[in-house]
Amino acid sequence: MTATPSPLGVGPAVARTVERAMADLADVGRLPSGGYARFAWTAVDLTLREWFAGEAQARGMDVVGDRAGNLWAWWGDPDRDGPGVVAGSHLDSVPGGGAFDGPLGVVSAFCAVDALRERGLTPGVPLAVACFGDEEGARFGVACAGSRMLTGALAADRALALRDADGTTMAEALTRAGRRLDGGTGFGADAEAMARVGTYVELHIEQGRMLDGTVPVGVGAGIWPHGRWRVELEGHANHAGTTPLDQRRDPMLDLAELVVAARASASAHGALATVGRVLVEPNGVNAVPSHVTAWLDARADDEGPVRAVLADLARFAPQQESWTPTTVFDPALAARCAGLVGAGTPVPVVATGAGHDAGILSAAGVPTAMLVVRNPTGVSHSPEEHAETADCLAGVDALTAVLADLTGARP
Amino acid sequence: MTATPSPLGVGPAVARTVERAMADLADVGRLPSGGYARFAWTAVDLTLREWFAGEAQARGMDVVGDRAGNLWAWWGDPDRDGPGVVAGSHLDSVPGGGAFDGPLGVVSAFCAVDALRERGLTPGVPLAVACFGDEEGARFGVACAGSRMLTGALAADRALALRDADGTTMAEALTRAGRRLDGGTGFGADAEAMARVGTYVELHIEQGRMLDGTVPVGVGAGIWPHGRWRVELEGHANHAGTTPLDQRRDPMLDLAELVVAARASASAHGALATVGRVLVEPNGVNAVPSHVTAWLDARADDEGPVRAVLADLARFAPQQESWTPTTVFDPALAARCAGLVGAGTPVPVVATGAGHDAGILSAAGVPTAMLVVRNPTGVSHSPEEHAETADCLAGVDALTAVLADLTGARP
Repeated sequence: MTATPSPLGVGPAVARTVERAMADLADVGRLPSGGYARFAWTAVDLTLREWFAGEAQARGMDVVGDRAGNLWAWWGDPDRDGPGVVAGSHLDSVPGGGAFDGPLGVVSAFCAVDALRERGLTPGVPLAVACFGDEEGARFGVACAGSRMLTGALAADRALALRDADGTTMAEALTRAGRRLDGGTGFGADAEAMARVGTYVELHIEQGRMLDGTVPVGVGAGIWPHGRWRVELEGHANHAGTTPLDQRRDPMLDLAELVVAARASASAHGALATVGRVLVEPNGVNAVPSHVTAWLDARADDEGPVRAVLADLARFAPQQESWTPTTVFDPALAARCAGLVGAGTPVPVVATGAGHDAGILSAAGVPTAMLVVRNPTGVSHSPEEHAETADCLAGVDALTAVLADLTGARP
Repeated sequence: MTATPSPLGVGPAVARTVERAMADLADVGRLPSGGYARFAWTAVDLTLREWFAGEAQARGMDVVGDRAGNLWAWWGDPDRDGPGVVAGSHLDSVPGGGAFDGPLGVVSAFCAVDALRERGLTPGVPLAVACFGDEEGARFGVACAGSRMLTGALAADRALALRDADGTTMAEALTRAGRRLDGGTGFGADAEAMARVGTYVELHIEQGRMLDGTVPVGVGAGIWPHGRWRVELEGHANHAGTTPLDQRRDPMLDLAELVVAARASASAHGALATVGRVLVEPNGVNAVPSHVTAWLDARADDEGPVRAVLADLARFAPQQESWTPTTVFDPALAARCAGLVGAGTPVPVVATGAGHDAGILSAAGVPTAMLVVRNPTGVSHSPEEHAETADCLAGVDALTAVLADLTGARP
């Protein structure tokens, strides 16, 4: 490997490209509230995918789709000269999400390619920008669906049968989006695509304030164990005006008990527990609900507290929808990135409670690293999510340094 | 007034018509769950209105719409020979509602016309079947919207500005349904239509078990005071995996507190209180909600307990969306109906917690009565809502006797 370029600061042309690319995306799937609705395989998602392909083509990179709905833009031929180094993230959002969670990583990766070229550097191995599909799982309920299907962690038949809130299956959504499924054989794990990935680096806006505001860019140590559980609360539909209280079976009372119990248990065990999604049936003002479905998100810095929360809530019979054990990113790679990002003065290496495709690839055996760009308020999954432009440029600069090093880039 | 026919039992032709008419409606707006989604000014609502017009035309009755979106089918000319006697109910439903709440009253009124004719009787004054629009208020949040607009209890400009869950105003919904609003002047209170109504009789399936199962048909004494309040619970959107518990502003916890407090207060004061409708934003599994909106329905046999519940919940700043004071139906008319229904042995005369268009017309000064058909389980606003066919026919028979008496029908 050659002498490693330290962060140099990105030039004005790359800085303009970062701003232009974020502006390109600013109106896609934006809600009147200012947040985003960018859900898998919707028209908005297809627009984002077209944008990705356009950015790749403008740089002369080869766009390749894999069997799991993810997109890759290659500089160099990974089948001949690979495996390569991949940088990327995702373009989808949670309902009402912010502008940075996902897109900042994809934009920064494209701009790191620009920065390498501006410095006259050529990677010694193929380099790709990746866009993973359905990272947030906002539509079908399974987070990191694209990377999980790619690696085989989520079986294609289970994924294709997942339903959105309107009852549409992922298989139907894919077909409507123009994907050929060939009876299911055209979709799922893709060993060929995985074989091209030697190393994966994901840049992401900070979620929370783990960097403590001291530096613009930090390095990820790993991801907390986390999971989602569905709780079905059964009731008995009835008229709100004529049914005596003692003859009701009102699942809204059970929801209240679940919400209070989840918070108390998480607090007692030092975990995080959230009931953020609730569906009420029939959801009429003058009807005692027949059914309430609630989703529990639980995480902690260790698996013990999460298990303790679930044990406390066992009476609600939570059904596990997803579970990701503790992820520890390759420690040597993290240390190497920390040195490169800090240009010799290592920056903080911190674990996060948020799941990422980087965690899925790491669990599948890919050496993986994350760079984290400072978020002054720590707010995420909200229109208030924010990163200063100077910090975004520092992120591109850090990613450029890391990719130059990992690809053995040289003039 | 002539000699009053007592209930005679409906003949086989009328019995078949009751079953055919209920079967006609059985598939309109039916959900996979078996419940109904029949909301104001939707395509389903327009289908129901066409059905009403078809039934009227098949009987040679004149269909007249009023300025408030209600339909009237007249036998005789109320403008020349009125005011007349009106029997009716509504065809719309709560989300997931049952087959009888509303339609049974409209079908029974048409079949009472058939029964009068089968017996060779002609009303001495004009007789109408009415179909009130948007009784449940499922779409725009105000119950009895059609009768409230008709009488002027709900101002047209306020009604037209109401929005459904998708943000569509009632004005937009009406325009899409082909109604000409003429800048708002074409819609609202209709004194001319009201002047035609001398007496109103509404037959309705029982909601609850106030008749105590002893007779198939009872008579309404009045309607409990009842209202709806909206509660806005403000939060701070954030990532469920990265935001420490002590830095959250999670409105789901406030919802839990509201639900528990409403039940406890209602129980303490002998009232009914229900949180049946909840909207969570953004409603993502891994997002602390930014906002929860909840609706409170509160009722009691007297206004005191309802006021006490609202006072207990004052810290949630409930916003009143509707309020209907105690309704007492004309006592002499109720006693007369009770004698006619029981063929000399008066049947129970009972108050109900459920609101009806009958309550709105009564409050507007129209002599009003209700007949109530037994519901064996007492379940309402649910697919389990049910009346036995024999009881439905007893209801048609009772309504026929009441209409014959009130219109002074003679051979």
